[in-house]
Amino acid sequence: MNVGILGGGQLARMLAGAGIPLGLNFTIVDPKADACAGALGRLVTADWEDDAAIEALAGCDRVTCDFENVPAAVLEALGQRTTVHPAARALAAGQDRLVEKRMFESLDIPVPPFAPVSSRPELLEALERIGYPAVLKTRRMGYDGKGQAVLRTVEDLEPAWQALGDHDLILEGFVPFDFECAITVVRSATGALSCYPLSRTVHQDGILRLAMAPAPGTDKLQARAERLGRTLAEHLDYVGCLTLELFAADGRLLANEFAPRVHNSAHWTIEGAQVSQFENHLRAVCGWPLGETAARGRSLMINWIGRMPERERLLACRGLHWHDYGKQARPGRKVGHATLTEADGQSLDTLMAELVPRLDDQSASLLTGLMNDSA
Amino acid sequence: MNVGILGGGQLARMLAGAGIPLGLNFTIVDPKADACAGALGRLVTADWEDDAAIEALAGCDRVTCDFENVPAAVLEALGQRTTVHPAARALAAGQDRLVEKRMFESLDIPVPPFAPVSSRPELLEALERIGYPAVLKTRRMGYDGKGQAVLRTVEDLEPAWQALGDHDLILEGFVPFDFECAITVVRSATGALSCYPLSRTVHQDGILRLAMAPAPGTDKLQARAERLGRTLAEHLDYVGCLTLELFAADGRLLANEFAPRVHNSAHWTIEGAQVSQFENHLRAVCGWPLGETAARGRSLMINWIGRMPERERLLACRGLHWHDYGKQARPGRKVGHATLTEADGQSLDTLMAELVPRLDDQSASLLTGLMNDSA
Repeated sequence: MNVGILGGGQLARMLAGAGIPLGLNFTIVDPKADACAGALGRLVTADWEDDAAIEALAGCDRVTCDFENVPAAVLEALGQRTTVHPAARALAAGQDRLVEKRMFESLDIPVPPFAPVSSRPELLEALERIGYPAVLKTRRMGYDGKGQAVLRTVEDLEPAWQALGDHDLILEGFVPFDFECAITVVRSATGALSCYPLSRTVHQDGILRLAMAPAPGTDKLQARAERLGRTLAEHLDYVGCLTLELFAADGRLLANEFAPRVHNSAHWTIEGAQVSQFENHLRAVCGWPLGETAARGRSLMINWIGRMPERERLLACRGLHWHDYGKQARPGRKVGHATLTEADGQSLDTLMAELVPRLDDQSASLLTGLMNDSA
Repeated sequence: MNVGILGGGQLARMLAGAGIPLGLNFTIVDPKADACAGALGRLVTADWEDDAAIEALAGCDRVTCDFENVPAAVLEALGQRTTVHPAARALAAGQDRLVEKRMFESLDIPVPPFAPVSSRPELLEALERIGYPAVLKTRRMGYDGKGQAVLRTVEDLEPAWQALGDHDLILEGFVPFDFECAITVVRSATGALSCYPLSRTVHQDGILRLAMAPAPGTDKLQARAERLGRTLAEHLDYVGCLTLELFAADGRLLANEFAPRVHNSAHWTIEGAQVSQFENHLRAVCGWPLGETAARGRSLMINWIGRMPERERLLACRGLHWHDYGKQARPGRKVGHATLTEADGQSLDTLMAELVPRLDDQSASLLTGLMNDSA
């Protein structure tokens, strides 16, 4: 069976890594000739709308995406010719933050206060209602903190407007959260659905840095998060993995955004869950039985941002699993990650304490903070 | 860093699967154009001694094997031009059963009685000394029970001689073992060495069918097996993973044979150990720190022989990890395996009991036997 993937980044790379042992072959379409998933499949270098791309993918038994901003029209066209998961409609629902937030509201999924902004007067009006601090975001094409500005005082207003005013925008109330977390849900075409344990996430400058799972102290939140994830997946008649990013505040959960694909907050599942999000996404896309989402002990994932750290220094850490995406170094770019997992006689606390002295200062500080906060 | 592999079967496929996340690229040489490791690297279709093969591999930073019967001369030639692990000498030591057994004896590694056989009179003489039952084996090129005949009575003699008499042979006493097991050792160029937990193995018709690890009830045998494995690896100044196959009889361990490569009895380490044999072999070959060999709970591996079983029936089993080698079906051929691993709240006993009814009769019977025997 041949699976086509729109987008050839690290998510496609890890999908193919999970799928090859399942007996799948991959055809990957990406505009870049050095797309890192090319090591594990046939890479077609083309733009999404390119005829060559459409033809290569239409010949696959199944098609999926590693990227939520694929034009929905491309998926619709492909959907006429082969089986595409997730469907264009599900992708479209996540491509515009305003549409997404309104969908959450309509599903009784709690969200922070928000308002659409398409002019300066609208921004001022929205700020009056929502108050400082707030976050001004582009409605489309934002990821990893791009296309966002935090407004803490009136002085932040002008630079934010200069930077973003050309786009359709949304203003969101800044949630004074206790912590951030994310739930990954996998759903099959038959409606079977499983949820991974909540992952506690730590962002910096809008980029995910750490994920710990199962998120400590979330026994009560887990069932609530599962209900929200299930509501969303069923509403979208979703097939595959999706992740709902959440703020936990005063024992409540507020939805931030969802990603209609495998997600960074669940990379820990490769070694830390019985079946990874990558394998389960493919199982769902192929119409096979879903795999168990149970955790195998506790896990911590740490992202490598900008450039890979010194490999030998880190490979010497017990319990550490290395993921080099094979990408060129570039500031702010996700180039790899590592996951710590427990083994017989090794607790995650011990493994994290051994890891900290081998990290760069920034990562060490974030991890120490998370360890203290979750102890 | 580019790693060359002589041989493109499932072992090379799983080496590459483990190595790509480490940031490695692979060049794979195999005489067959459909070698299954080709999905994960650049496949050079050529005979081992072919100039194209030598050139492709000589350009790699490191070279290793997925096959112990690579001509030692090829490794020697490559060793002049790049770094080759294991070295030609280690490979040669395992290519002739007689040389291997004599090496074991010289290292005080206990072995069953054996004698070289190059003529009918020598066979009769050896049988007189060793007695029935015994196993007549070709000295070279045997694997998966090929090139062997069990002699239980004098009537087995003539057919065995007809089948094997053209080769250099060895007669080995048949060990009335309690069970078979195997220890996998990884050693780095600096002499650092780690051992995986003993794997209890079950063969049928000379082919490995099941492996359970850590082997139950082997607390005392583990240290002894580690000593034997260490002695062998140090004697060979070995770099990479090697596996020593053992008979356990009356609380003693007798060496059967060793494999200078990653080995089927340790496939469970992919999901069942902190770092797999495949990753650790590559870490050793690349000169990186070795990873932890600690188990992550208990595991059971089951080989798929001849053809893959029905995928959907088995993917529905909890705790099951699927490995389809992407090979054509053929009687007696290893085409894939699956590994059961424990997760939070799931014991291996439960998972095995759930698996049995989904297996073919032969596999079900072998697994039930192992479960009863190891309970």
